[in-house]
This record gives sequence, structure tokens and C-alpha cells, in this order.
Amino acid sequence: MAQRGDRIMLAHGGGGILMKELISFIVDKLGSNGAAPLQDSAVFDAPGARLAFTTDSFVVDPLFFPGGDIGHLAVCGTVNDLAVCGAEPVSLSLAFIIEEGLPFQTLERIIESIARVTREVGMAVVTGDTKVVEKGKADRLFINTAGIGLVRQGIELSSAAAGPGDAVIVNGTIGDHGLAILSRREGLDFGSDLVSDTAPLSRIILPLLEKTGGIKAMRDATRGGLAAVLNEIASDSGVCIRLKEESIPVREAVRRGCELMGYEPLHIANEGKFVAIVEGEKAEEAVSLMREHDLGRDAAIIGWVDEGPAGHVILKTLLGGERVVDVPYGDLLPRIC
Amino acid sequence: MAQRGDRIMLAHGGGGILMKELISFIVDKLGSNGAAPLQDSAVFDAPGARLAFTTDSFVVDPLFFPGGDIGHLAVCGTVNDLAVCGAEPVSLSLAFIIEEGLPFQTLERIIESIARVTREVGMAVVTGDTKVVEKGKADRLFINTAGIGLVRQGIELSSAAAGPGDAVIVNGTIGDHGLAILSRREGLDFGSDLVSDTAPLSRIILPLLEKTGGIKAMRDATRGGLAAVLNEIASDSGVCIRLKEESIPVREAVRRGCELMGYEPLHIANEGKFVAIVEGEKAEEAVSLMREHDLGRDAAIIGWVDEGPAGHVILKTLLGGERVVDVPYGDLLPRIC
Repeated sequence: MAQRGDRIMLAHGGGGILMKELISFIVDKLGSNGAAPLQDSAVFDAPGARLAFTTDSFVVDPLFFPGGDIGHLAVCGTVNDLAVCGAEPVSLSLAFIIEEGLPFQTLERIIESIARVTREVGMAVVTGDTKVVEKGKADRLFINTAGIGLVRQGIELSSAAAGPGDAVIVNGTIGDHGLAILSRREGLDFGSDLVSDTAPLSRIILPLLEKTGGIKAMRDATRGGLAAVLNEIASDSGVCIRLKEESIPVREAVRRGCELMGYEPLHIANEGKFVAIVEGEKAEEAVSLMREHDLGRDAAIIGWVDEGPAGHVILKTLLGGERVVDVPYGDLLPRIC
Repeated sequence: MAQRGDRIMLAHGGGGILMKELISFIVDKLGSNGAAPLQDSAVFDAPGARLAFTTDSFVVDPLFFPGGDIGHLAVCGTVNDLAVCGAEPVSLSLAFIIEEGLPFQTLERIIESIARVTREVGMAVVTGDTKVVEKGKADRLFINTAGIGLVRQGIELSSAAAGPGDAVIVNGTIGDHGLAILSRREGLDFGSDLVSDTAPLSRIILPLLEKTGGIKAMRDATRGGLAAVLNEIASDSGVCIRLKEESIPVREAVRRGCELMGYEPLHIANEGKFVAIVEGEKAEEAVSLMREHDLGRDAAIIGWVDEGPAGHVILKTLLGGERVVDVPYGDLLPRIC
């Protein structure tokens, strides 16, 4: 470490010996889950496969936050996009854009975090890329991950498949990620139990799909929160989604933080929460199964699918009134992921 | 355009209505090759497939340069990584990190360029992502692409497969991309014929693989130039690669620019050049086939594989001397791709 200096230099991005050293450093830290990223491309067999393919860039600020970091988040984000398609995460690509001057130690912690979570879900980092830009031309570190997953046989999920009588289920409390980032960034203290929910949802979704039927659609509720994904499902399926406020799990600290800042918990980003649209008669069974899992302890039926007004999400409030749940217009919390 | 404003706002990254509008704008511009990026993941069948998977981020400065732009480059870079594996490019992911304030017009030109080249190679943009960061936290636009390709049956290419007697072939002049970027960035005029060679190499590589045998390894010569990939092949195969300086195609403007700046053309990045290691007796045929293609007009045998000294690349100079061709140490030209 002393020999190569403590910080990433512009020259680490140049395609020469220094870049090779940087890549070796990354591959080494990734451990056995990252044997191949020295290669520009990975080649593998996928016999008779139905594949899911997804990508996300991560620009979260700060890089480290209560409950996670940008590396952990970058893997979970891609794993979750695959999992809600009913796909088992298989191969991950990992691309860093690094601002000159980033301490190696910071990169090291983030890569160790990536290695831990890829091992946890059994996903291999098979290809990667590293770019370095001048100081002031990026904000420390941006990560892009792309993922390939194998879609389980017989799984057909679609945001257009929701129908009247289906239940709307969420696997736990909402808004944790967004408020955790906000509290860390702004130095606000909403309560000690406020940590990001970032988690690899394949761990709960794949067993759930195996054990129960009747799941028609799934979406992870990231930017735009629960409101954005429910509106998308309502619109794609041409149905109305009716939520009951009293059923939606929200941590006290998140409720308090949202009140203080004037936010709506339904609009806040999550990184370990998904919505499942499940046939009515299977809903209780699905919730019971989810509650047996550490990522579904607070799972709950939060509403039902109704015929109309089509394309709308309507919330029955604690006080008994009804209001339309809109998609947020712009950006509540920039750089949340 | 007037209604939404002329520039990207931070709010365009927030998961709300504005982000949806931005994504629609992108999908619309991509045309028929980008039907699916509104979805977080793409799902497709790949029966009995052998797949190649690759990723690259692009941070090139300037965004537009003689012969290309960051969008064209981002597609070609990923296409080329797949092509040198003998894979037909199939699915592309497209992720933007945008600095707040980027003119929509700039984004528009870049996406149109992406659409043109994906159509040209028959690759579909199937999934994507958009993030926006605050002014000053990124440099206008960074793009990540990841690509999935179908490896042609019977193709086995490996940088460890080079053996004594094999020929080293390049498909044209080297150093064009690096010098074109440099001349534009620094306002230097090395000659009017200096444009980037950025091109989708699948167009020449896939027909070549079909028409001729004996190709044992291929690599595209990007960052680190021809020197980096040849050293890698020499090292992986445990052989010596002997080059003849007089055979290496270099444009006059590149030669002049390199002399002026003290650069070595073998170290300069290319974005439309690949090296093929070909069995000796097939070499002339391969070069002839390459010369019939617009991306191989100046193809040439530039050297041969020898037994030793293993792991080295040795250049016979114009003056008849010999020197070792090293991998560059750090970064000659930052943000070249």
C-alpha cells in the first residue's frame, strides 16, 4: 500500500501497469467471487435459459450510511431488479468511476462490502471496468452494476397482471433507506433505529416463489417509493389500487422524520422492500411465509386491487378519508441511490 | 422542449414524473431499438446459448470529437469487447450519469448517435438507468453500457492460445482515436485526416470468423494501445511477439502528433482496431478478407509469434535495431474513453 501511494491517481485509469495493479487490487479484494474481472468480457454457458438483464448506476451521497454503503447498495439494487422478475442472480458486472484522490482505504472498504453481499447471494462478479477522472470532475465514487439472472421455470410476472380481488403486500417498513440517507447527510437525528433497509431481496423472493403460488407481479420500491411502483402497476394493469394507511408498516423514526421534513413516506425510496400483487386467496399464506424470513418480519397486506377508477392509487387515511396517492413530481431526495 | 426546460434538472433523477419524462425522451430517441428501457429489467430467451457479458463506463472528454461522440463510443466499446470473444452483440444496457444543467440538446444528439450505431449492428437497448447529480459533481455526462452477446458455435478464442509461427494482424492504422481526442481537447492541429477510428468491430470480425479458420486470439486495442494487448497475449501464452515497425500502419498525422508530444503510437488508444493472432498459413487469407471490408482497408501482418523470450514484445525498428515494447506505466491521455 505504501509503495503505490494511499490515493487513486489519474494514472490508475490509463490502461497501463498502474491500472493493472488497481484491477488486481479489486479482484483480490473480491475474493473467490471475482475470478474473472481481469478480463474485458466473461463467457459462460446458459443452456435452455430464460434470462433477465438489468443495470443501475449508483451515485449515493454519502458513500457510507447507517445500514450500508454504495458497494452494498450497488449489488443489492441489481439483485433486487432481477429478483422481482423471478430471476436467480447469476452474473454481475462491476464498473467504477473514481475521482482522482479517492483513498484506497475507502475503495477497499467498499469492495469488501461488495464481496460479502455477492457471496451471500451466490452471484459472481464476472466482468468489470475502472475509470478515473480528474479531481472535481466526479464526486468520489460512482458505481455501475449490471446483472444477468436466470428466470425460474414457470414464473410469469407482469405489472400488467393485477386484477380485482388481488392483495397488495409489502415485505416490511417503508421509507427507511431514504430517511437514513437524509439523516446522515443533513446531520439530523430522527431516532437511533433509523438504518437503511438495503438488502438482497432474492433471499426472500426466490423461496417465496417456490413455496407459494398466486404471485402475479412484483416490484422493488426504490426511487419514487411505494407510490411510484403502485401507480405503475395500477396504470399497466388498468386497475385501481386501494391502500389502508393503518396497514402500511412505517417505523416511528421515519414517521417523525417525514413529519418534520414535510415528506410523504409513500414517496420515500427503499432498497430492501418489494411490493407483491398476490391472488386474494393466497395472500395470507404469502404474508405468513414472508414473516418467517428475516427480510419479511413486518410483511403486511396493505391494500387490495379494485376495478376502478383505473390507473389510480387511493389511500384510506387513518381518519377515514380517502385521497389519491400521486407519483412525486421531481426529486425529493437527490442522490438517494 | 420549451415546456420542460432546455436543461436537465436534478429533479429529473428523482423517480417521479420528471424522471419518467426523461426516460420517455430517451426511449423515444432510441427508436425501435429501445422499446424496453422503461423497464428496470429485460427478460429474454437464450436457448442453448453460450453467452459473453461485458461492461464499460465512458468518461471521454470532450463529449464530441472528430469521428464520434461519447454515445457512439459507448456502444462501440461494448460491441467490440463482445466481438473479440467471437460473440454476436444482442442486448445492450444503457446507463446515464448526468450533471445537472446538461442541455437536453446535447443528450439528444448523443442518444441519436447511440440509436444509429445500435441499429447498424442489430443490437437492442433492452434496459437502462438514469441518475442526475448536482452541478459540479460530475463532468456533464458519463455513460455505462453493458452488453450480452451470443458466442458463435465452435469459436474458441483465448489470449493464452498464441503459439510460435502464428501471425499478428491488425485491421488498420493505430493511434487515430487517442490523437484525435488529444487534438480536439488541446486545440492542436496535427492534420486534417485525423479522426477517431471508433467503429463497431462486430461488422468485420463476425464475417471474418465465418469465412476463415485459424484465428486463435483477438483483442481490441483500447487504453494502453497495441502495446498493452500484445504484452497481455505474450504473457498469457508464454511466447514472444516480434513486431516489424515498417509493417505497422500509422497515419502521417498520428506519427507527426506523437513525435511532437513525445508519445509512442503503440501506446495510444484505438476504438476501432483489433489484433488477431492467426495461424501462419492462414494469415495472408485473413488479411485479404479484412482488406475487402471498410473497417479493414489497411489491415496488415505486423509481426509473428516466436518462442522466446517468453512474455515479451520486441520491435524491430526501421533502422534495424531491436527494442522491447513495454506496457505504459500510467496514463498518457486521461479520459480517452
